[in-house]
Amino acid sequence: MIKIQILLLVLLIIISCNQKKEITNINDNNQHPKLILTARGVQDIRSKLGTIPIFDNSLQKVKEEVDAEIDLGIDIPIPKDYSGGYTHSRHKQNWFILQKAGVLYQILDDEKYAKYVKNMLMKYEEMYKTLPLHPKTRSYARGKLFWQCLNDSNWLVYVSQAYDCIYNYLTEEERNKLETNLFRPFADHISIDSPQFYQRVHNHSTWGNAAVGMIGLVMDDEDLIKRALYGIEGKEMDKTAKDDDGGFINKDGKAGFLANIEEPFSPDGYYNEGPYYQRYAMYPFLIFGEALHNVKPELKIFEYKDGVLLKSINALLNLSDADGDFFPLNDGQKGMSYYTGSLVTAVDISYKYGNADSGLLSIAKKQNRVLLDDSGLAVALGIKEGKTQPFQKKSINLSDGPNGKQGGVGILRNEDIELVFKYASQGSSHGHYDKLSFSLYENGEELIQDYGLARFVNIEQKGGGNYLKENKTWAKQTIAHNTVTQNETSHYQGKYEIGSQNHPDLHYFSSEDENVQVVSSKVANTYKGTDLLRTMALIKDKDFEKPFVLDIMRVESNTFNQYDFPFYFFGQVLDTNFEYKTSEILKPLGKKNGYQHLFIEASGKAIAGNSKFSWFNNNKFYTLTSLTNKIDDLIFTRIGANDPEFNLRRDPALILRRKDSKNTTFISALESHGSYSPVTESAFNSKSSIRELKVELDSQEYTAISITSIKGNTTLFITSNKKASKEAKHTITINGKHYSWTGAYYYK
Amino acid sequence: MIKIQILLLVLLIIISCNQKKEITNINDNNQHPKLILTARGVQDIRSKLGTIPIFDNSLQKVKEEVDAEIDLGIDIPIPKDYSGGYTHSRHKQNWFILQKAGVLYQILDDEKYAKYVKNMLMKYEEMYKTLPLHPKTRSYARGKLFWQCLNDSNWLVYVSQAYDCIYNYLTEEERNKLETNLFRPFADHISIDSPQFYQRVHNHSTWGNAAVGMIGLVMDDEDLIKRALYGIEGKEMDKTAKDDDGGFINKDGKAGFLANIEEPFSPDGYYNEGPYYQRYAMYPFLIFGEALHNVKPELKIFEYKDGVLLKSINALLNLSDADGDFFPLNDGQKGMSYYTGSLVTAVDISYKYGNADSGLLSIAKKQNRVLLDDSGLAVALGIKEGKTQPFQKKSINLSDGPNGKQGGVGILRNEDIELVFKYASQGSSHGHYDKLSFSLYENGEELIQDYGLARFVNIEQKGGGNYLKENKTWAKQTIAHNTVTQNETSHYQGKYEIGSQNHPDLHYFSSEDENVQVVSSKVANTYKGTDLLRTMALIKDKDFEKPFVLDIMRVESNTFNQYDFPFYFFGQVLDTNFEYKTSEILKPLGKKNGYQHLFIEASGKAIAGNSKFSWFNNNKFYTLTSLTNKIDDLIFTRIGANDPEFNLRRDPALILRRKDSKNTTFISALESHGSYSPVTESAFNSKSSIRELKVELDSQEYTAISITSIKGNTTLFITSNKKASKEAKHTITINGKHYSWTGAYYYK
Repeated sequence: MIKIQILLLVLLIIISCNQKKEITNINDNNQHPKLILTARGVQDIRSKLGTIPIFDNSLQKVKEEVDAEIDLGIDIPIPKDYSGGYTHSRHKQNWFILQKAGVLYQILDDEKYAKYVKNMLMKYEEMYKTLPLHPKTRSYARGKLFWQCLNDSNWLVYVSQAYDCIYNYLTEEERNKLETNLFRPFADHISIDSPQFYQRVHNHSTWGNAAVGMIGLVMDDEDLIKRALYGIEGKEMDKTAKDDDGGFINKDGKAGFLANIEEPFSPDGYYNEGPYYQRYAMYPFLIFGEALHNVKPELKIFEYKDGVLLKSINALLNLSDADGDFFPLNDGQKGMSYYTGSLVTAVDISYKYGNADSGLLSIAKKQNRVLLDDSGLAVALGIKEGKTQPFQKKSINLSDGPNGKQGGVGILRNEDIELVFKYASQGSSHGHYDKLSFSLYENGEELIQDYGLARFVNIEQKGGGNYLKENKTWAKQTIAHNTVTQNETSHYQGKYEIGSQNHPDLHYFSSEDENVQVVSSKVANTYKGTDLLRTMALIKDKDFEKPFVLDIMRVESNTFNQYDFPFYFFGQVLDTNFEYKTSEILKPLGKKNGYQHLFIEASGKAIAGNSKFSWFNNNKFYTLTSLTNKIDDLIFTRIGANDPEFNLRRDPALILRRKDSKNTTFISALESHGSYSPVTESAFNSKSSIRELKVELDSQEYTAISITSIKGNTTLFITSNKKASKEAKHTITINGKHYSWTGAYYYK
Repeated sequence: MIKIQILLLVLLIIISCNQKKEITNINDNNQHPKLILTARGVQDIRSKLGTIPIFDNSLQKVKEEVDAEIDLGIDIPIPKDYSGGYTHSRHKQNWFILQKAGVLYQILDDEKYAKYVKNMLMKYEEMYKTLPLHPKTRSYARGKLFWQCLNDSNWLVYVSQAYDCIYNYLTEEERNKLETNLFRPFADHISIDSPQFYQRVHNHSTWGNAAVGMIGLVMDDEDLIKRALYGIEGKEMDKTAKDDDGGFINKDGKAGFLANIEEPFSPDGYYNEGPYYQRYAMYPFLIFGEALHNVKPELKIFEYKDGVLLKSINALLNLSDADGDFFPLNDGQKGMSYYTGSLVTAVDISYKYGNADSGLLSIAKKQNRVLLDDSGLAVALGIKEGKTQPFQKKSINLSDGPNGKQGGVGILRNEDIELVFKYASQGSSHGHYDKLSFSLYENGEELIQDYGLARFVNIEQKGGGNYLKENKTWAKQTIAHNTVTQNETSHYQGKYEIGSQNHPDLHYFSSEDENVQVVSSKVANTYKGTDLLRTMALIKDKDFEKPFVLDIMRVESNTFNQYDFPFYFFGQVLDTNFEYKTSEILKPLGKKNGYQHLFIEASGKAIAGNSKFSWFNNNKFYTLTSLTNKIDDLIFTRIGANDPEFNLRRDPALILRRKDSKNTTFISALESHGSYSPVTESAFNSKSSIRELKVELDSQEYTAISITSIKGNTTLFITSNKKASKEAKHTITINGKHYSWTGAYYYK
């Protein structure tokens, strides 16, 4: 007996020693795969296959997709098209399939995938070694496989992963061939040969950096890795040069992956171009982050800048509506959502390398797929183990700027209503001139819209899928947004140089009291001599069916101006309490700065007191109540004038126009209320709950608005226009009545 | 033992005798309830409660609703408002609650419901006996509780059921009081006092007939029952008088419930006003039908006119899109669907009194409620017993006219595409002037829309919820529809008198070959001297992603005319192969007949050959290919001109205009293709699959169109313009090639 026990013990020791050895081996940084998949991760995954539904399903889908492509055969066409065209789409499809096939080889241990990757890479090698610049000339930085270096970089970010997966499958000779003729020249083209693309702080460059860095990590090439992290050594850029979008290429000389983390992300994780481009940039940030974490753990990339990469994921998820669609701040195409691939990456990486937030699992469940790597495995296991919790989006204030000192975005949420208040900085070349603008959502539906961009991404028929000229002439202009335009001119004269040197400042943000949430910001210099202070409150009151918005826009100017204040509603005019006359023929509202794109559908004169406008959309009712003077104009407009190729949507707005004014305050309330059923043909709560909005006080120090409901109850909202700290004590007298409170605002 | 057995036998006989007696009793027509609920039905229901989920849930919801109303207390306001106003809504709510409370009393045997019904009826009695005409004067037949007799009739149809349910609960004295002061004068007001409403063939009158008949059945009043079935005895109407909508009140002297079945329903069950009004009329037809079936089974009402009442339910269900929304032919508000209450009635009654079609159970399941009566019980049991089958909508041709000889509606369905071709007769006062028009749907989404009506039913802010004047000036006009308008004048000069004396005729309908389905119809006299023949085919071909539409509209005229041929698409212009110029200022297309409501957004000249237009909507792509001449105009329009109260939607169209032509043929193909994902930002199959459409022959006898696909394959569609029988043999030679076939068309 004892002999047998000893024998077993010895055996056990031998086995465990072998395991230890293997573990040591697979942690070795020269072992492949090491970049995203790791040798140990592959072992874990293989051991759990068949028991982790969301992972198994993701794997199955990828397998079906790749198998279908393998059956179709390899096609490496000579590059010739813009986005949306065949050669563009084909090479794009190839990069995805290469990456996926590489993963399948590792997880399924089936040589056919390695062979497929190898064959395709060899064909790329054959073509690339003599490939000239892409024939299309529109880009400021032309690629070779694609019309712009950006897409070449996309390719390399994915293909690096494929190469890593089959690295050990290739002979040294094969590797040398690929590295010499394909990967190194490829990395050089998008970096050294294209510094105007590579050597800057911009989402394009982030892709470039990640591409160079990831292939560098696979090839164990310290030069490339350094070039990725810190930019091209010794390269000085022309500080005045601009790119296609009008943005400076490199005004302050910063470059490289770390600078690209440093600059565009605020400490809260807000990305200065806005969520649409953050979503796009997310993939290279995180996938290269994960690669660095795996291969260069000593860099502690996920702790860099106080952990901003992971924070940015939380910020981005909060910049989406109830359906997960990102708010289209700046250039953003509507419909982009957290269902996009890069957000699968983001959610999985955030779960694995962050604090395993169980709310993320609910998003992963909705996404219904996971990464086929260690992080996806972690998420799949979390879900399998029943850890899923709802992801709770709350009101949040996200500062903008590298130090969080350049304005921000405030989101107020209550029940189904989401108010998005943008007081951010210019947002780089993708920024719009819309300081202190807002948009309003209800349960994922736009009530007051931000136009988004003027582009049909990858729809070839519309300008090759690229930015349309109306993006500049319309979408970026101030009048295209829900904020004030002075004298028919955009903020900062619509000039990037001025815009990027200025920004609004937070006045205060308060979401402690769920029933009265407020965000307030001020900005100078949008117009010389004019200061704006906008305070927006989301108020839940017993006399109202749903939370409503109170909007106070104070304008102080030392000159007489015309102010236009639009509300881009959706749907059909239902009712107004003011007279208006529709136009017999429709003429543009103006000649430039976006005004040339608006038709005047109707004009009216406001009434002294409360001008009310209600509308109807998707079987729901809405009312805008605005404090107006008799001389104010109310103009119904529709987008679409001077639009020779039907590039713009025919969306309506109501513009409140106040002429010949110095200081003025726009005060409005916005209500969503009631519903209509076309099946029962019954309307419920189709009218406003506000009997009267009234200014009780409007001074440099305080603005006080009373709101009397239809039921006859009156509440008072006072905002402090100067002292706004949580601790500040205020005592004022309005109409003989004393009010005292602590904090920036009062509501009762 | 034997003694005991005998004893048991005797007992059994006694019990069975008692049961027999009870059954006899409860079939007695003087037993209440007898109208919709029956005494025996109530017994059955009570015995099954708690075991029939959909019924139990429906009951629970009704109970919660009624209990909440009982808690609120009874309110019988003095009538003063139009639809959408408080008193209107309140009395409407009362009729529903009364009916439901009556049912609850029967099923739950709880006196509180009987008491509630009694109390409310007594209050109505108190008010009604001195109530003058409703103060609002807009109706051609004013009611007392409501502004129009129609709504008073609605009230009585429901309240008769409530009265029946508590009949036995009331004392004779109470019944006398109610019948003398409320029910009989109420029935008289809507009939004898309002013959212009009652004594006609119209959906309004059907409600009136049913109201009078149902209270007559409850009260066992043969006079009222006869008046319901056959109209007011001896009443002669002015044959030239018209109602508010411009329809004749009673041109041919017919009246009463049976005439209302006889006239508007075709033998196929198509209702001449269209599905929206059929849905509305359905309730009184079927509920009074059910009542007659229960109380006067000798009438065999469900076998009347070859069982047309039950056939009409099948027709109506087939007149809905994939979501169950009815096609908005004539005046129809979009969004009305088979989820509406009257369709719950229709589906349940059809199941119970028809042939227990298990497909109906799937609709009942979607409706998620059943009637709380014998028919609802039957459906609930059917579902419980697992009999549910999908309701398969197929291509269907529905004849119009009392004898099925006045045109019709043809619906072609293949995969997700539904083509609705309207060649129906005028459709009574709710008809539109759109002979040979069409609309196109894909999986419940409108691709080419019919505008529907210009009305916001029960939305008080829009003209009291009633028809807007734009219904006449726009929605009814020919140019508002997808058919040909000659010389900017509507069909039949837009005159009801002419329209109602003419109608198109079916040329042929063929759906035997699922891959090539065709409907063809001709009409004379829409314009004097002009004949139209339109042939529309829904073709599934291997070179196309989805079934596409081939449209051949032949116009023969003895004068030179201008023809306008619009396509009311949705969404955004993507691409054209013809040049166009957008308008700097938008002007109306014309001055009258609907043209005054169209803005010209852009104009272009067609090219000789195929003019192609593609558009983009809800992330899908569409292409129209039209055979054009160089002199044809292509005009992009948008609805909304001369619309002083924003009553019209701002929807676009492309109008093909052909000037100075006598005979001409419009030939077009419509494709739905591809998709776009804003999440992956990728476009799939965004271009047309048609390389060329070509006329190979166009004679009085035949039109032959060749369709060459992008893949280079050519098919030929030949339609016979004269002989169209299934048996007809054809032999022709086109371009030297011989074609022989049997039947109306050829496709290969």
